[in-house]
Amino acid sequence: MEKTQQFIQENKQRFLDELIELLKIPSISADPAYTQDVLDTAEKVAEFLRKANVDNIEIAETEGYPVVYGEKIIDRNLPTVLVYGHYDVQPADPLELWESGPFEPVIKKTEIHPDGAIFARGAADDKGQFFMHVKAIEALIATNELPCNVKFMIEGEEEVGSPSLVNYIKNNKEKLKNDVILISDTSIISNDQPSINVGLRGLAYLEVEVKGADRDMHSGVYGGAVPNPINVLATMISKLIDEKGHITIPGFYDNVIELTEEERAEMAKIPFDLEEYKKSIGIKDIQGEDGFSTIERASTRPTLDVNGIWGGYIGKGAKTVIPSHAYAKISMRLVPGQDHEDIARKFAEYFPTLAPSSVEVKVTPHHGGKPYILPTSHKGYIAAKKALGETFEKEAIAERGGGSIPIVALFEEELGSKSVLMGFGLDTDVIHSPNEHYGLFNFYKGIETIPYFYQYFVQD
Amino acid sequence: MEKTQQFIQENKQRFLDELIELLKIPSISADPAYTQDVLDTAEKVAEFLRKANVDNIEIAETEGYPVVYGEKIIDRNLPTVLVYGHYDVQPADPLELWESGPFEPVIKKTEIHPDGAIFARGAADDKGQFFMHVKAIEALIATNELPCNVKFMIEGEEEVGSPSLVNYIKNNKEKLKNDVILISDTSIISNDQPSINVGLRGLAYLEVEVKGADRDMHSGVYGGAVPNPINVLATMISKLIDEKGHITIPGFYDNVIELTEEERAEMAKIPFDLEEYKKSIGIKDIQGEDGFSTIERASTRPTLDVNGIWGGYIGKGAKTVIPSHAYAKISMRLVPGQDHEDIARKFAEYFPTLAPSSVEVKVTPHHGGKPYILPTSHKGYIAAKKALGETFEKEAIAERGGGSIPIVALFEEELGSKSVLMGFGLDTDVIHSPNEHYGLFNFYKGIETIPYFYQYFVQD
Repeated sequence: MEKTQQFIQENKQRFLDELIELLKIPSISADPAYTQDVLDTAEKVAEFLRKANVDNIEIAETEGYPVVYGEKIIDRNLPTVLVYGHYDVQPADPLELWESGPFEPVIKKTEIHPDGAIFARGAADDKGQFFMHVKAIEALIATNELPCNVKFMIEGEEEVGSPSLVNYIKNNKEKLKNDVILISDTSIISNDQPSINVGLRGLAYLEVEVKGADRDMHSGVYGGAVPNPINVLATMISKLIDEKGHITIPGFYDNVIELTEEERAEMAKIPFDLEEYKKSIGIKDIQGEDGFSTIERASTRPTLDVNGIWGGYIGKGAKTVIPSHAYAKISMRLVPGQDHEDIARKFAEYFPTLAPSSVEVKVTPHHGGKPYILPTSHKGYIAAKKALGETFEKEAIAERGGGSIPIVALFEEELGSKSVLMGFGLDTDVIHSPNEHYGLFNFYKGIETIPYFYQYFVQD
Repeated sequence: MEKTQQFIQENKQRFLDELIELLKIPSISADPAYTQDVLDTAEKVAEFLRKANVDNIEIAETEGYPVVYGEKIIDRNLPTVLVYGHYDVQPADPLELWESGPFEPVIKKTEIHPDGAIFARGAADDKGQFFMHVKAIEALIATNELPCNVKFMIEGEEEVGSPSLVNYIKNNKEKLKNDVILISDTSIISNDQPSINVGLRGLAYLEVEVKGADRDMHSGVYGGAVPNPINVLATMISKLIDEKGHITIPGFYDNVIELTEEERAEMAKIPFDLEEYKKSIGIKDIQGEDGFSTIERASTRPTLDVNGIWGGYIGKGAKTVIPSHAYAKISMRLVPGQDHEDIARKFAEYFPTLAPSSVEVKVTPHHGGKPYILPTSHKGYIAAKKALGETFEKEAIAERGGGSIPIVALFEEELGSKSVLMGFGLDTDVIHSPNEHYGLFNFYKGIETIPYFYQYFVQD
């Protein structure tokens, strides 16, 4: 891998400049206003794969945004790695909290990133991370050191639950055939402590609506005598989690696979400083389920969070109105054993029972995803651990992530192969938030590590 | 009053056309975007007073929007009536629910208004109602039948709590001197059953903010371990009212003057059809404080309503975020005995105690107003009752209104005179809501009744 590593060192600045180009396009899949930008980003991804000399590149149509496919088959008898990533990004709001434009990438040094980090929406999630794979293969092909077959599947709907990828995979099983799936869309513990994500939480996302009267009403004329949908919704939400932090949906915990004492002990080894943690996000205190550590709460326990709420008059000044409707977006993170469709169903059955007879309640499921586990005995895990050991010169720790990549469980079902989550971000990259950024150290370390993964995966 | 009544009959169409002119100007005092329109409306009001031959008209500057003043003094030895009204209106949103533009007045017949009603924001609250007084005085002056002195004080900040009127009154006590204040900004029971509002609820309006982390966070990375300001705010709101519909703020009911058995009996006489009531606003069921009738709940009991709530992602699609902040606008209707400043203070002290240690809470008071009572022995009440008997040919009932005209209590304090709330609207006029309207029957009946009020007030 020497020539490859040398190629990478010689092209560092160009790799960064190219990433910046990609980050400038606002590929927000959740908002129809950005449709053309998402499509333009797909073109850009294909263009970079072409530049890397990847073959059979396609911008494959789907019911939604296209999937960018490409492959480099060097020998049918060698193992094949399928690289998955996504070129779409989260909405950028609240815009006023960005120190620089979300789609005007800038490099700034930070305490955690003395070599600088690139600030832009999508820098870490996931443009900056999947792009490492594009650059790694470019280096491997250019230096003729590619040790296995590699396929790329970069989608544009991950941030909205990958609605179209399911059919794309079902219709292209032969083409996507692989021995392991490699994904960089997660974090390491720190730049001194590499880690591999061996577990992901699932997700069930729903939207609820509470209706009182047919119209907004004057709070003086009707106040006290009629249901106020906001007060009602607030009370319903408050009943979803009890004082001990347990979610009250009947059957919610039924199938949760509890951690073994060994797993909890292993997890306790992960370095964690509570004061540092609170300081890093500016909270006065932590809050969660009784009987679990913060790391357990954030990665191995199911959760329920209201992601958005609105109703009534939210403009300037004051309006004495009792609104006709109140709304909330509510999502639950799920853990191994829980099925997102089962949980969404249980929520939809339970939530309306929390309402008084005076209102009407509507529950609409958004998307969902299954939880995921990778055994540390898997050859993909072993290859990743060796590769990280090579570049970080430190042994990687197995870690569970709190986030969801719903598609990973689907890959296993449809393609029969495991996914290795070898991400290079940091939890402090503030993905999904204003001022998202990605360390240059992490970007380059990822490009350097990926070739070793191929090497060890083939050797193993 | 024969010539006056004849003059009114002969000018009906013109009066309506002039009101339409007034309704076309979007004088929304809560939204700075409409500043010029509010100022233009003040000019328009002055112009109509001039047309009525009212003297000493001024558009008096204040810290906020101007007060339009005018007077007709026929004899210093005769009683003086001060007419109060407001030319500003509520915001018009949600716009999509209006069947016609809120500021493009149209006349439509409805079941309750077979003679037609004028649909526009402010039609009933309060442009259509204070304008009746302008047309009544025009008729009385034109026919030389004005029996007393009349002063006009039409303000432009009622919908935002009349912040500037206080100083205006304090600085103009001599000019505003009067024997009674006459206001049309309330409703009658029905077009077959006139009523006079002898009680108003007060108002305390506050805005609350709950802060968790310094920034929005990824619900996967942090969910379960950190406070979610929306869930926290919802739980805090749910604790403000208990299962019996009682407000839990310590000391909230301390000074409430409970109704006497006689008052409750009198109130029980007011015709009320529960099914009709539910149907009229499209609610599945009523909801309120245990032990009180719907009419009592809506007019004689204090209330707490969330008028607006917002936080997190409220755009299209789904975003898995734990927001940094959540907000709500909360108002309480107060009854005789309660002081709005005292209640606002009690709320501000109590609300933060409902929060866990993990969040920061901020409470900001908006405006407020005192409750009000008019004894049925007052000569102003008696004159109004006789005047309504004259035009409706039916005895008016004394009624309590659930709404607030905060300024009324202030008038009594500063000017030492009682206000007579002789309004002509209907609760079905949907003031503050889309498709606000005012019956032509009510508009004309008001213009016809006002001259008799002057007559009986002088005779008495």
